Amino acid sequence: MSILSKIQNPQDVKKLDASELPELAREIRNEIIDVTSQKGGHVSPNLGLVELSIALHRVFETPKDKILFDVSHQCYTHKLLTGRNNENFRNLRQTGGISGFCNRGESCHDAFGAGHAGTAASAALGLAAARDRMGGSESVVAVLGDAALTNGVTFEAFNNIGQTTKKMIVVLNDNEMSIARNVGAIAKYLNEVITNPTYNRLYSDMDAFLKNIPLGETIAKLADRVAHNTKSFILPSSFFEYFGMYYLGPIDGHDIPLLEKYLEYCKKATFPVLLHILTKKGKGLDAAVRNPEKFHGATPYNIITGESISNGDSSVPNYQDVMGKALLKFAKDDKKIVGITAAMASGTGLSFIKKELPAQFFDVGIAEEHAAIFAAGMACNGMTPVVAMYSTFMQRAYDCAMHDVCLQKLPVTFCLDRAGLSPNDGATHHGVFDISFLRPLPNAVIMQPSNEDELADMLWTSIRSGKPCFIRYPRGKGEGVKIKDQPEELEIGKAQVLSESDGKITIWALGNMVKEAKAAAEIIEKAHGIKVGVVNARFVKPLDSSLLLKHADENKLIVTIEDHVKSGGFGTAVAEELIDNNKSCALKIIGWPDKFIPHGTNVACLREQFNLGTQQITDSIIESAKKQKIL
Amino acid sequence: MSILSKIQNPQDVKKLDASELPELAREIRNEIIDVTSQKGGHVSPNLGLVELSIALHRVFETPKDKILFDVSHQCYTHKLLTGRNNENFRNLRQTGGISGFCNRGESCHDAFGAGHAGTAASAALGLAAARDRMGGSESVVAVLGDAALTNGVTFEAFNNIGQTTKKMIVVLNDNEMSIARNVGAIAKYLNEVITNPTYNRLYSDMDAFLKNIPLGETIAKLADRVAHNTKSFILPSSFFEYFGMYYLGPIDGHDIPLLEKYLEYCKKATFPVLLHILTKKGKGLDAAVRNPEKFHGATPYNIITGESISNGDSSVPNYQDVMGKALLKFAKDDKKIVGITAAMASGTGLSFIKKELPAQFFDVGIAEEHAAIFAAGMACNGMTPVVAMYSTFMQRAYDCAMHDVCLQKLPVTFCLDRAGLSPNDGATHHGVFDISFLRPLPNAVIMQPSNEDELADMLWTSIRSGKPCFIRYPRGKGEGVKIKDQPEELEIGKAQVLSESDGKITIWALGNMVKEAKAAAEIIEKAHGIKVGVVNARFVKPLDSSLLLKHADENKLIVTIEDHVKSGGFGTAVAEELIDNNKSCALKIIGWPDKFIPHGTNVACLREQFNLGTQQITDSIIESAKKQKIL
Repeated sequence: MSILSKIQNPQDVKKLDASELPELAREIRNEIIDVTSQKGGHVSPNLGLVELSIALHRVFETPKDKILFDVSHQCYTHKLLTGRNNENFRNLRQTGGISGFCNRGESCHDAFGAGHAGTAASAALGLAAARDRMGGSESVVAVLGDAALTNGVTFEAFNNIGQTTKKMIVVLNDNEMSIARNVGAIAKYLNEVITNPTYNRLYSDMDAFLKNIPLGETIAKLADRVAHNTKSFILPSSFFEYFGMYYLGPIDGHDIPLLEKYLEYCKKATFPVLLHILTKKGKGLDAAVRNPEKFHGATPYNIITGESISNGDSSVPNYQDVMGKALLKFAKDDKKIVGITAAMASGTGLSFIKKELPAQFFDVGIAEEHAAIFAAGMACNGMTPVVAMYSTFMQRAYDCAMHDVCLQKLPVTFCLDRAGLSPNDGATHHGVFDISFLRPLPNAVIMQPSNEDELADMLWTSIRSGKPCFIRYPRGKGEGVKIKDQPEELEIGKAQVLSESDGKITIWALGNMVKEAKAAAEIIEKAHGIKVGVVNARFVKPLDSSLLLKHADENKLIVTIEDHVKSGGFGTAVAEELIDNNKSCALKIIGWPDKFIPHGTNVACLREQFNLGTQQITDSIIESAKKQKIL
Repeated sequence: MSILSKIQNPQDVKKLDASELPELAREIRNEIIDVTSQKGGHVSPNLGLVELSIALHRVFETPKDKILFDVSHQCYTHKLLTGRNNENFRNLRQTGGISGFCNRGESCHDAFGAGHAGTAASAALGLAAARDRMGGSESVVAVLGDAALTNGVTFEAFNNIGQTTKKMIVVLNDNEMSIARNVGAIAKYLNEVITNPTYNRLYSDMDAFLKNIPLGETIAKLADRVAHNTKSFILPSSFFEYFGMYYLGPIDGHDIPLLEKYLEYCKKATFPVLLHILTKKGKGLDAAVRNPEKFHGATPYNIITGESISNGDSSVPNYQDVMGKALLKFAKDDKKIVGITAAMASGTGLSFIKKELPAQFFDVGIAEEHAAIFAAGMACNGMTPVVAMYSTFMQRAYDCAMHDVCLQKLPVTFCLDRAGLSPNDGATHHGVFDISFLRPLPNAVIMQPSNEDELADMLWTSIRSGKPCFIRYPRGKGEGVKIKDQPEELEIGKAQVLSESDGKITIWALGNMVKEAKAAAEIIEKAHGIKVGVVNARFVKPLDSSLLLKHADENKLIVTIEDHVKSGGFGTAVAEELIDNNKSCALKIIGWPDKFIPHGTNVACLREQFNLGTQQITDSIIESAKKQKIL
């Protein structure tokens, strides 16, 4: 019987003899590799954090003590040790299985949910401040990857730690890599800390210090040293000490006894502490160590070779690659065109321009706000920036879209990948709000292509438009259409009629839902003998008002379909236009409901679950038509 | 003839003899005091930056060189020196006058527009990167207040400077105060830099260094020193050097010759430089020096006494004060209630709780994201946080509202002050998008009171609800109603019928537009002899669906009025509900159009300008009614 199989809760971890821990770590790694090789998931970050998670659960007591994982894509070991070592883990990120992220609804051991980076220090400080006010004594530990230090929210939190609490622990998990190789001044600084003898001496001194002095006295002396508000102000010897945190490290993040010793010190400290640990991303899986970026978030893979197990027709490209290749092509002909990513070069397809035209590529770290404002600045000086990020992360640059880009009418193009569902990731990653929040912004042009060739057309159209443009498109494979050698410049605000109706029903569909609209139209035509019109809307803003109003006059029912929440989305834009123009034609809006959509095995099963499968859409159109006495 | 009157452009500033500059500074101060005492404006920040602005325009050449002011509420001297020393300046922030902020549309000397804090370093880096790619030679200067260092975006930019450009200047204008007295570790650090001999020695060394070595050689040596990528890595001696910027200062920000000398050095530097200057906020106006927070953004005032010149019935309280006093009252009875502000204690009314219950008050600096996530963390640990910020700044915490608060169903209340217009500030400050971006978030409760007593009820309702709540309310005076001793807990999702219709028209109005609805109803009733129903909607989400559907059945026309853009707002929520329920009742949505609303003298004149005056609203309802053949 394995050691892991005996672990039902953190108390079981504490009962283990120290000699059993290396075997436990080995079993956990095997379990993570076994499950992720079949289900996909965040492989490398989790393999790097096995020992720290074990040490945390031996030193601290969840749920009383609070452990917060930044992004929380490194929480698998934590989950295995806190009652989730069961079938639900084997169904990780699938319908019915557990989430790949921390989730307060899933377990009382998950102190704070996350999926976006940079929130852990802020949230931990909130938990600590609440504890201080309520007279509690629990420990609060925020586990950050080095990438969190590229995100501004982490600094906002750091700036507030010293004045807010005297008891909080930050563990900085430094693997010299966030999602892609890390960027920026702080990454460089951390690298110097690790490699430079001047810094390493500081660590050695501290290590000796910790070893030779009884605990109580040590803490008192440390406290003295960090008491910056004493008269004898001492120059900080580490970047983090500027923020009023006592700095410890760097130490080996795979050495469980050492981690436990340092965490015990941190636990007793009466001042904020930052413990810097060094880990190897992907440790235990050769393929992941060799290619940590690919194995950051991986699809199912062969454990030996590391090769991805294909999930579809490999001749059909992903939207992200089509975007990335189109951008590269345009940028080759115009050096004013630049690609900007917030740490997602490969996820957004910008890896192509990164490789071939590095002078026209910028990776700013997980810093979506800076990405957008930096782009606005470049646009002011004559450049044509294309910012590629996931739809859900655009939420972070919302104020920048308004205040810096749209208000100043700057020609910045935002490519919003993963618009619609990111099924295995779930609610934190679905991109289903972008139309609602972008549509009210004056000067914004918002569009969605119905296939990958149209995506290239839209990118070209945006670049040539001189306007703030937002192109949303889904995760994953395109439709398999041929991509033209030369893109077509689309007329902004013009929809494309795919088929005319016979005067009863026309469906206005957006983007990837055009396919659904065509399928539904066909089913209805066969079943009811009427001709259903289908329009590829292309533009949410400006909407093709003249065509829409014509269709409102010619039809009895307009149906809209979008891969976005109904509230404030594309269908609502259609509704507003009809109301503004006093049209009495009936309208049926089809989209995601007013609920957070959970994770699930794939898009199809989540659509079924929320009544957005092809047949369900069709039935819903038929039902509306019957209410209007059209059928 | 004054010196200032001869300045038409920056060339004229350069032509002045150094001996004339103190007199120019004096004249500029007088002009700023004269204009702001009549028109209001950002008094203290502008009085502090007179000398720096003069020095910048003597050393650099705009529009070729780019000067970016963070927030840009300190740009008055810059405006006076760049062709705007005319009647438009005398009408500062009024209809027809110039903006109180930098504005690319207003002048080619305004390199980047702003109104929100923390964007200048990011935008400047964009301008610098564009210059580098295009082979330009212009200087790019970002002028930041110390408050910008509480904002995460500034750190995101700092983290990217070193890898992005070798030529960029940051001027840190340190007045030991942002809007209110500054908070956080970095503010403390800057204070140490100024007061601690250890740090001051560094500065003196540098000053001697700069004085004694010919320019070329100096620059070469400095470059060497900051070249962190050489093998001989040197420990940074300043916080800013961790970010790859060479640090100069602190120097006296009111000494024009000294500023010019340092700026000349910066201009020639071949590496990023941060120049730390010390200024006195409000310099030249005793009242402002004594009370810099009040004079940060002031209404018209008496120059001698500093007293505000009243603009209305002083017995009617501001919404912000009603909120602040209600919160204080509730917090006195429940220590779990805390108030959180992002550097706006007095603007949001949190100054009351700050003063009386400091342990239940948190000012996190200009860090809206941290404020929201910190609140979420506190809520996870049993507290009842109330985050008060301006509607326009909620745009910065949008992802936090979704990812941290609503997704986790945490009981955080957001009080969104300045929802609607902030007339003198203009487009960067109007809060007219919040409903559109918040409404799609599942679990969110969104409401707006029709008067100040209802605001207290709504705050009480939110605190007791256990839900994520957003209360929006306008800038300025309430309606003058009596505030009940004990607040009433409102039923969430219930509207209030103020008058019933006779079956033709019912107006659903939100918040401050209820007053307009009543006025319009009265005019229509008098003119056309019909009884118009008026509803105080109270809740945007959840909407009072049953009442709305009843009204849709009973009336021929539903009208909505809101102080918000029409696109995706309250009227749209009504539209979606009617469409979802297949109601054919006509709907007229009244709100702000799809345009950025500029600044203007007051709310009334902006409403007139955009057809939202009382008579215009009334006419528009009558026109809709006539189209429906109701009148």
